Amino acid sequence: MLKKYLHEKKVLIDENLELCLKELEYPLVISEGMKYSVLNGGKRIRPILLLTILELLEKDEKKGIPTAMAIEFIHSYSLVHDDLPALDNDDYRRGKLTTHKKFGEAEGILIGDALLTYAFGILADKNGFLEPDQIVKLVSLTSKYSGIQGMIGGQTVDIQSEGKKIDFETLKYIHENKTGKLLKLPIEAACIIGKADKKTEEILMRYAELIGLIFQIKDDILDVEGDFEKLGKPIGSDLESKKSTYPSIFGMNKSKEILFSVANEAKEIIRTNFSNETAQILIELANYMVVRES
Amino acid sequence: MLKKYLHEKKVLIDENLELCLKELEYPLVISEGMKYSVLNGGKRIRPILLLTILELLEKDEKKGIPTAMAIEFIHSYSLVHDDLPALDNDDYRRGKLTTHKKFGEAEGILIGDALLTYAFGILADKNGFLEPDQIVKLVSLTSKYSGIQGMIGGQTVDIQSEGKKIDFETLKYIHENKTGKLLKLPIEAACIIGKADKKTEEILMRYAELIGLIFQIKDDILDVEGDFEKLGKPIGSDLESKKSTYPSIFGMNKSKEILFSVANEAKEIIRTNFSNETAQILIELANYMVVRES
Repeated sequence: MLKKYLHEKKVLIDENLELCLKELEYPLVISEGMKYSVLNGGKRIRPILLLTILELLEKDEKKGIPTAMAIEFIHSYSLVHDDLPALDNDDYRRGKLTTHKKFGEAEGILIGDALLTYAFGILADKNGFLEPDQIVKLVSLTSKYSGIQGMIGGQTVDIQSEGKKIDFETLKYIHENKTGKLLKLPIEAACIIGKADKKTEEILMRYAELIGLIFQIKDDILDVEGDFEKLGKPIGSDLESKKSTYPSIFGMNKSKEILFSVANEAKEIIRTNFSNETAQILIELANYMVVRES
Repeated sequence: MLKKYLHEKKVLIDENLELCLKELEYPLVISEGMKYSVLNGGKRIRPILLLTILELLEKDEKKGIPTAMAIEFIHSYSLVHDDLPALDNDDYRRGKLTTHKKFGEAEGILIGDALLTYAFGILADKNGFLEPDQIVKLVSLTSKYSGIQGMIGGQTVDIQSEGKKIDFETLKYIHENKTGKLLKLPIEAACIIGKADKKTEEILMRYAELIGLIFQIKDDILDVEGDFEKLGKPIGSDLESKKSTYPSIFGMNKSKEILFSVANEAKEIIRTNFSNETAQILIELANYMVVRES
């Protein structure tokens, strides 16, 4: 059931992303670079989370599509800039050349900038279904969660920690910000769009935190035990760059134990508070993120 | 009169920028890098234009301050990324080390990203005096003028044109987008904030175009005839990188003729349509941009 659900949502999001990118033409290297970076076979976990939470709240998912796209644009820009030579210096992503390898380094920087800039344009221009003060809240949240107090903060501490032994607090900060905030963003955005009450929002934000944690622990585990073919990127890169990870701090067995226990809490929260069909999807989604191979 | 006016406005803007940046703390390299990049002794032409147009419209300039700051953040980010090794590879700006030279290349990329991201946060969070639909319009405009259809577009065609002979149409596209759009942005933003009528907005947008043109022609001239000490950057860099410029296409004498004629049109537009004290400031501002030495 989950597989079919995820596939249908991914098709819907990809169609909308393609339509949205079609509007951009000149200069060609930027518009082509934006398309290359966004339409890269991504799993669309963040936009799917947004649409699924709207469904859970029994609201029209159409209202969430522009914001879901904006978040995916921000996710894409962050990958483009992370892959740059001065940062992770990665040549491949999902088995394809990274954006700067394909289009040039200067262009890679500018394509990333253009994706980030355009994300805010989507929020402002495509959200005609929403009230203006909802749009303002979405812009505010998107800026906060992807900026210095969010994703960029986490990414910065991550690169500063390379080759250093860091404590668990620092590792937690990196996870909560580098990947966690951009997984919380679609869930909190869905609460704004769906006008969730305070209590529902709190419950869902806890689920969001746990999903972020699952994602990160699993990412660390895959970097040790993953399959290059399935992952589309080299294995062992954390070890090579001496990154602190769950396995390097807790060992592999304990890391897996934590992963399962976090996933159980995530599922329990949904089970206790929601009972419609979409609740089941969110429970299966937590499972899927535990067993994913890429 | 103009000198005192510009100084007072610059002080007001600098104070607000400092206050705004003070809120940012962790990670230190990003918050310090953002401060270093923004509080760099810039002339604040763009924020001043916004406040001055609000004055011209006889509206409260306080309403414009957050947007003026957001635009300055975007201007700063664009300089930080332009200076990167993969782009212009500049070591100095205003006689100080460029951001990536001071903080590192990866950090330079992330500091630029953080400035751009934060600009949209300022628009959403600090504009409580405005109606939400005005804020949405400001976000939309800022994204459009600074993204692929604006500044990034111009910057891209500029770097692609280096070392190539380009026609006047291409040079015009570069100017109108690379620097022009970010000079139009504060003027159009002031029209949104001050709720200018359609006709007034059209008049002011023409003034904005001409100011952008003055700025660019003068920039090209200064790169040939400027003074390193005053300019704070090397002379002749356009020639060295074989950039097409006004002097390289039209020769120096003709370039100066065009500069004066554009400035006359800008002054005439204000003179014909406005009569308050601020109109005089806008006329003197056009003169100032013709004679500036940095």
